[in-house]
Amino acid sequence: KLEWTELDERAVDTVRVLAMDAVQKVGNGHPGTAMSLAPAAYLLFQKVMRHNPADPDWSGRDRFVLSCGHSSLTLYIQLYLGGWGLELDDIKALRTWGSKTPGHPEYGHTAGVETTTGPLGQGIGNAVGMAMAARRERGMLDPNPVEGESVFDHQIYALCSDGDIEEGVSAEASAIAGVQQLGNLTVIYDANRISIEDDTDIALGEDVGARYEAYGWHVQTVDWTRDESGYVEDVPALYEAIRKAHAVTDRPSFIVLRTIIAWPAPTLQNTGKSHGSALGEEEVAATKEILGFDPTKTFEVSPEVIEHTRQAVVRGKAAQSAWDEQFTRWAAKPSADPELYTRMQTRSLPQGWDADLPVFEADEKGVATRVASGKTINAVAPVMPELWGGSADLAGSNNTTIDGVPSFLPKDRSTKMFQGDPYAGRVLHFGIREHAMGAIMNGIASHGGTRVFGGTFLTFSDYMRPAVRLAALMQLPVTYVWTHDSIGLGEDGPTHQPIEHLAALRAIPGLDVVRPADANETVAAWKAVLERNDRPAGLCLSRQNVPTFPRGADGYTDTSKVHRGAYVLLDTDGIPDVVLIGTGSEVQLAVRARELLAAEGIAARVVSMPCREWYDEQETSYQEMVIPPTVKARVSVEAGIAQGWREVVGDHGRIVSIEHYGASADYQRIYSEFGVTAEAVAQAARDSIAATEA
Amino acid sequence: KLEWTELDERAVDTVRVLAMDAVQKVGNGHPGTAMSLAPAAYLLFQKVMRHNPADPDWSGRDRFVLSCGHSSLTLYIQLYLGGWGLELDDIKALRTWGSKTPGHPEYGHTAGVETTTGPLGQGIGNAVGMAMAARRERGMLDPNPVEGESVFDHQIYALCSDGDIEEGVSAEASAIAGVQQLGNLTVIYDANRISIEDDTDIALGEDVGARYEAYGWHVQTVDWTRDESGYVEDVPALYEAIRKAHAVTDRPSFIVLRTIIAWPAPTLQNTGKSHGSALGEEEVAATKEILGFDPTKTFEVSPEVIEHTRQAVVRGKAAQSAWDEQFTRWAAKPSADPELYTRMQTRSLPQGWDADLPVFEADEKGVATRVASGKTINAVAPVMPELWGGSADLAGSNNTTIDGVPSFLPKDRSTKMFQGDPYAGRVLHFGIREHAMGAIMNGIASHGGTRVFGGTFLTFSDYMRPAVRLAALMQLPVTYVWTHDSIGLGEDGPTHQPIEHLAALRAIPGLDVVRPADANETVAAWKAVLERNDRPAGLCLSRQNVPTFPRGADGYTDTSKVHRGAYVLLDTDGIPDVVLIGTGSEVQLAVRARELLAAEGIAARVVSMPCREWYDEQETSYQEMVIPPTVKARVSVEAGIAQGWREVVGDHGRIVSIEHYGASADYQRIYSEFGVTAEAVAQAARDSIAATEA
Repeated sequence: KLEWTELDERAVDTVRVLAMDAVQKVGNGHPGTAMSLAPAAYLLFQKVMRHNPADPDWSGRDRFVLSCGHSSLTLYIQLYLGGWGLELDDIKALRTWGSKTPGHPEYGHTAGVETTTGPLGQGIGNAVGMAMAARRERGMLDPNPVEGESVFDHQIYALCSDGDIEEGVSAEASAIAGVQQLGNLTVIYDANRISIEDDTDIALGEDVGARYEAYGWHVQTVDWTRDESGYVEDVPALYEAIRKAHAVTDRPSFIVLRTIIAWPAPTLQNTGKSHGSALGEEEVAATKEILGFDPTKTFEVSPEVIEHTRQAVVRGKAAQSAWDEQFTRWAAKPSADPELYTRMQTRSLPQGWDADLPVFEADEKGVATRVASGKTINAVAPVMPELWGGSADLAGSNNTTIDGVPSFLPKDRSTKMFQGDPYAGRVLHFGIREHAMGAIMNGIASHGGTRVFGGTFLTFSDYMRPAVRLAALMQLPVTYVWTHDSIGLGEDGPTHQPIEHLAALRAIPGLDVVRPADANETVAAWKAVLERNDRPAGLCLSRQNVPTFPRGADGYTDTSKVHRGAYVLLDTDGIPDVVLIGTGSEVQLAVRARELLAAEGIAARVVSMPCREWYDEQETSYQEMVIPPTVKARVSVEAGIAQGWREVVGDHGRIVSIEHYGASADYQRIYSEFGVTAEAVAQAARDSIAATEA
Repeated sequence: KLEWTELDERAVDTVRVLAMDAVQKVGNGHPGTAMSLAPAAYLLFQKVMRHNPADPDWSGRDRFVLSCGHSSLTLYIQLYLGGWGLELDDIKALRTWGSKTPGHPEYGHTAGVETTTGPLGQGIGNAVGMAMAARRERGMLDPNPVEGESVFDHQIYALCSDGDIEEGVSAEASAIAGVQQLGNLTVIYDANRISIEDDTDIALGEDVGARYEAYGWHVQTVDWTRDESGYVEDVPALYEAIRKAHAVTDRPSFIVLRTIIAWPAPTLQNTGKSHGSALGEEEVAATKEILGFDPTKTFEVSPEVIEHTRQAVVRGKAAQSAWDEQFTRWAAKPSADPELYTRMQTRSLPQGWDADLPVFEADEKGVATRVASGKTINAVAPVMPELWGGSADLAGSNNTTIDGVPSFLPKDRSTKMFQGDPYAGRVLHFGIREHAMGAIMNGIASHGGTRVFGGTFLTFSDYMRPAVRLAALMQLPVTYVWTHDSIGLGEDGPTHQPIEHLAALRAIPGLDVVRPADANETVAAWKAVLERNDRPAGLCLSRQNVPTFPRGADGYTDTSKVHRGAYVLLDTDGIPDVVLIGTGSEVQLAVRARELLAAEGIAARVVSMPCREWYDEQETSYQEMVIPPTVKARVSVEAGIAQGWREVVGDHGRIVSIEHYGASADYQRIYSEFGVTAEAVAQAARDSIAATEA
């Protein structure tokens, strides 16, 4: 039974007052939801969740996701009250330079923030990912106890808004959560029916609860408006619903919490205005009076309140101690692998993990880099049990399936092709939901413990782009397997052929865009990606075969410098007349152009540049060793737009590119019709040399 | 009652045979759905829809959207049978260079293709947009007759697959269709429970019909598997469901059609393999035997079949003649405005439409370009009734509301703030569903008749990116109003601050990215955008005020060259020492830097470059007039990444940019902390001049 005293009531009202004051002080922000969700957030942080403010990284903690990130005060004020390290001055510094309380919660910036939110819908996807990660972690370390009895069992809670519900990414993620039967996930939906354009009747007409039932969720409604007959913040009813949600372990839970935004502001409650603007001095004062606070004071927190709420620190310590004991008992079990646990928590690779990486023999006919990627994943999978992943319904095309292991699925979802196991499963099936895949991957990574990859066609990176950006912003080590990376995919035509995607992805700060030239470069690229744990990477891989270069023979260098982003693949004697720079499947064109030029007595160096971001990180001396500043004749070749390549080739350089959409035909035909050929590269080299001599 | 003869059966089976043969011939493609959906597509094209193969642009036609674009044969073969201009040779040329039958249907490429599909989920959004456009067109031209009795009433039909249903964009669009009560829309969902990863049980667990009921749709199920007890293609049952859907005029209709993919292929029916691969000679032969076709023949079409199906031409002619009479009667009504109709169909602007464009007085404090945009929209709205638009729940921030007109909404969806009118409404409320907004805008534009704009924050252009790409690919004249276009939005912080978005959007071939420098440039930019009707444009607008330059005074030029993409805003006497190139809110920094430099005796020209794409289109002589090739000292300044600017400034140039994510604070502080200042521009100018002299 819930213990809920007047002091708790006072603490909740203190939240409202702080929310109003903080926004009023800086002059902008989102007070409304922070006011009306104060009881719910307080209930979760003070009465429901297991966590320890002193150790926000404790792996056994319940996770909290504020999907409606604009209501960052909802989270900040709980972190302040509960003692996570935020103090009143931090609340006062809301939305100002250098503060711990930026406009939207930022992962890695403020202790207790589990994920960066603000772009709506993402948080629900993150929460689904966290719930999946929790189950997988448990499955790896302690699969046998019944539900709720493992030290690794914990709960994921999310608060979301009408906006989160409207975004398609939340619909996709919620459908997946239904399929996955995530009993450890509870989403509370703040149905206040107000968004920036005021009354949501103009855009939100659906029965959201019925929709979640259709997804297979356990759905409850807690209506604080009592069918709009009078507002009562019935906290015990919400608590009861959360307990019931917790008790339902075979389905995710959805609680429709009907609230009035900005409650109890006298004139601005239930208005769009209270969503994203300061309420104004008068309204703030009037609301304080209603709440029994002194309207002339700001940031008023009574000592009793803060003393009461900071008991969270004591409870947190006790909870973690109890957990530690449970952990020790687990660690003593013969089946336990505490070393794996530690390795997972620190995101470190096992000794000798790369011993069995595949090596591909030189072969003119070659192999598609997506195939080489698949073989690499499967070579690493046995020694990296924390590695898991899958595809947005393109497993066979993306080569993302770990062979010989079950799929991460409830057993009753097994099909002829895929055996499901909710704990041992490592193959992920996202359906044709790239955006949720991205958001879920972020949740898996920010949860910690495992290393995830996800595949789709490169052109559909567009569908998941908002999640990719957030991965980069949060510096999460997720890996995208983007195959069919150019017109080289052939017949599927312009809707499926990336043209601008390499440039558009390179534009995202903090994302490594990696496009290997052949099978062995793909292996080295995967190695470099896995060795980093502080940023996302996207592998851009060919559908079509590309020659496997004879590494260490015929003048070809080995792949030991792939991690530097660019390296000399084939050199000349002495200073080259021209440097030919290619990526991915077009490196072979540079190689062939080099031969054409050699026949004319022109000495061309071939540089393979699989990752611009890695190359840009190198010291200047290395960069200049690869592309000598004195050699101004340069050609880049990539089956995509030129954007960004001028930086590499300079004023005298030439760029072999495609500045328009693709076409449906066999790929050799498209390459030749679009003029992306060895001959074109050779001609560009002649032009560039002529330009330097002009 | 449906007339359905043995000849119709034979025609349907002919579709299956052609689908198998076409894929077999080219060696790749998607035969399965084309086979199992053959009866449904044939029913629609031959028995249900009103259209005229001889005039695929007839504005009174029903629209058909193949949302599952990979099943392009479903459409191509109907276009062949019905006489839209495709012949057997075109079917044989499937997926080959230059053919009319590319891998996915391409709008503008093949007569009868209403929209480009392939990226899943988009087609449902397009269909919703078409249904909205049809209602709006009718509302503009003929609002009074009862439903179904106006010459402008027509139906929108869409076929979609499991993949379309899984994508979030379709969820968003379907929610909007429910709110809009689009009675003229019927979506048939081919529930074959097979996708590329085979049995969809691994990823699709929801009750899709119940979900659509939750959205407020009218939902029916037609189960050809008879609850998996034996497959019967009950065409009359489907016909009956379509008739019922037609009769329901206050809700969109959703028909769950349970099918078996690749029916009746003996071994590959109901498999993922049949989805996206040729069936193989043996399976094709075996299927032909089952269908009573000669297994040794390919592309077998009996003369009776084609004669029968080409009756569609005769029927189409008659239908259009009848419509023409109805149109003539309408045109004779005093309330009719046939001139407006013609103008809408030809996408031409009214005489003198730009007479009342706003002019902003010079003002150092200035005005935000988003505000200038809002005033422009409202100045044009009275003379361009075909112009409509709105926002993804950011109307007040995007300044996208046309004042004094109702919202495009059913009357019972009116709120305190917005009055709904299903016909007269011109203000669109998408909710927080940017992706559906994009897909719906594409549907509105491809339907024809109106001109649409839609707004969100620039950073959330990422959420709608797949739809933006399709607009560019289809060359649709939709306009995005992307406000809050930089760190200049301030306190909302990195999740909301575009950094890479200008570059990433410029990467999309065929999209005009327009970032005006001040209020009057914004007006000129809107004018240039509206004067084009063959490509999409995105206006990138400031949240913050920017100075309104004194046009035609103090050396400032007027805005008459804005449509050229770049022009000299402030010049020097003689050849400048350096050219400063800015976009949007950073042009003012170039202006101030010019003053700083002038004080040192350095002569700087300021170029405002609102649209790189327009500038790139200009003749070289104009380009060189703006940025003289001899002046190598150049500086660009834009509050985003440098990517792409080297092309403009050259080897000796300098780029003032931001290469990392933003921060939450007041915007002046962020600009100064990030070094995007007039001083930085001036310093970059000195550096660039020094570099040219080195």
